[in-house]
Amino acid sequence: MKLAERCPWLTSASRTERFLVAVSGGADSLALLHLLVAEGFQDLVVCHLDHGLRGAESLGDAEFVQQLATRLGLICELGRADVLAEMAKSSESLETAARRARHEFFAECAGKFSCKRVLLAHHADDQAETVLWNLLRGSYGLKGMREVQRGVMDLELIRPLLTVRRAELVAYLTSHGHAWREDASNAQPIAIRNRLRHEALPLLAEISGRDVTLALNRGAELTQERTELEAWALEQAKVRDPQGRLHLPVLRTLPVVLQRVALREFLREHGILAVDRDLLERGLALMDLKGPVVVNLPGGGRLRRSEQRLWLEC
Amino acid sequence: MKLAERCPWLTSASRTERFLVAVSGGADSLALLHLLVAEGFQDLVVCHLDHGLRGAESLGDAEFVQQLATRLGLICELGRADVLAEMAKSSESLETAARRARHEFFAECAGKFSCKRVLLAHHADDQAETVLWNLLRGSYGLKGMREVQRGVMDLELIRPLLTVRRAELVAYLTSHGHAWREDASNAQPIAIRNRLRHEALPLLAEISGRDVTLALNRGAELTQERTELEAWALEQAKVRDPQGRLHLPVLRTLPVVLQRVALREFLREHGILAVDRDLLERGLALMDLKGPVVVNLPGGGRLRRSEQRLWLEC
Repeated sequence: MKLAERCPWLTSASRTERFLVAVSGGADSLALLHLLVAEGFQDLVVCHLDHGLRGAESLGDAEFVQQLATRLGLICELGRADVLAEMAKSSESLETAARRARHEFFAECAGKFSCKRVLLAHHADDQAETVLWNLLRGSYGLKGMREVQRGVMDLELIRPLLTVRRAELVAYLTSHGHAWREDASNAQPIAIRNRLRHEALPLLAEISGRDVTLALNRGAELTQERTELEAWALEQAKVRDPQGRLHLPVLRTLPVVLQRVALREFLREHGILAVDRDLLERGLALMDLKGPVVVNLPGGGRLRRSEQRLWLEC
Repeated sequence: MKLAERCPWLTSASRTERFLVAVSGGADSLALLHLLVAEGFQDLVVCHLDHGLRGAESLGDAEFVQQLATRLGLICELGRADVLAEMAKSSESLETAARRARHEFFAECAGKFSCKRVLLAHHADDQAETVLWNLLRGSYGLKGMREVQRGVMDLELIRPLLTVRRAELVAYLTSHGHAWREDASNAQPIAIRNRLRHEALPLLAEISGRDVTLALNRGAELTQERTELEAWALEQAKVRDPQGRLHLPVLRTLPVVLQRVALREFLREHGILAVDRDLLERGLALMDLKGPVVVNLPGGGRLRRSEQRLWLEC
């Protein structure tokens, strides 16, 4: 099957609408750009951010991307950030500061070119690293990047290559005679990710003798499916009253796992995102009419039981 | 909190019923045995299998376990297997052959002592290895061992310590002055597991700076919850007709994720366990009245559409 046919978003997207494309100059983003052009996308804006981390090499990257865009007849927008300085100011990690700088740059481009949709070159190997990292970090299970994601500042982040392996992208470039800048995609050095990529994933693959990247990608799909299942189950459960409060006589009839989902989504809708297992347990304990009637929430609000309902007191 | 209070099965189990306890002589199983005795379990049968893998050391293990059982006033059943010979005969892996030998031994004990319930000393660190191994092997997501599991030959395998860390068990033994046989629990040498334990998990912990064992255990809980959620959703969906066939007009109204669950459970009930994503896709394609009416199943059966139903033709 052709590369593009394995990318759900690519096959169905409009060829005439405008899209921003994030292009570092490395193999991944160049494969994305060339694939889009080959697939007939007509109104692409090439967006390149120099993170200020690679010195003179950065200038070469920018020049390379600019020249390619010109050759392809595309608009090219170059930006520059001083990620190290931002990092020092904000005490963020390098990864977080770099991501914020990119998203701020995309937001600028979005305003300038009246287009909020940004195409990113994340692929299945990136996805495997993300899934593993989320797993190691804690309570997410196997959570990956979404193909289409609402980003900050109203951006829509789109990852058409999420089903494609890194090696396939390099093979695509090579077989079509396209050049790329070898280190440009590593212009955002991320220590932990690099160790996952170069140490952890190869060790796991060697021990198991399996394609670990595939297994991690499959795991992220299972998690995505779980989210869909939860949404459907919650809809069936009809646990809200007309005022949107949690209706205890219904909540009590649900299995515990769905009670947790119902409370978690209720809190999330009210802007309370830091919901851990302990908070859910204490919240659900409010179902007991002989127990406490109030639970304090992070951020100062309170979850209160009255008249067989749970509702939020701000 | 006391160790025993953190073990859901332990807190609620009957103290007077008979249980078989698998005791290798290593720290994990000795901690289990001593904990059970301390918690007042009165009718325990200590079951010890010599796998025939540790030569003279094995005799020492068996003797140690026997003497302890006598001191505790418990019945002790010793068994012996030649796992290497079994392995050669069956071309199973060492892990599989060893597990089969243990389960056959438990089944013998079950007959002899009229008790099908076997207590095993698997703990949270074992669980983390299992979860990681299942993840690496492929399509399971984060799947761990169950606290209570129906085993082969009608055995009920019970793992009371699944929430407890290995270090806590060692600390328990030490603080109560109980001895154990240092290498006895490694009497079942399992190459991949050992590499996960001694190489992969420490590397992942070092890279992430997190408690990876906790994260993997949490992941297994999420998967368990998903299973519960699927069961509830399937019950709500009412997708079977009175004859137990899949009713297409209902199946079509469900989200794809639940259609997959419905078909997978339908096939599973009919003994078809090797159900991969591809088979599910082809099976669900039968919903299309303009498409094929039959899908061949592993094992020779066929899934057929007729009169807006899917059913199994053997």
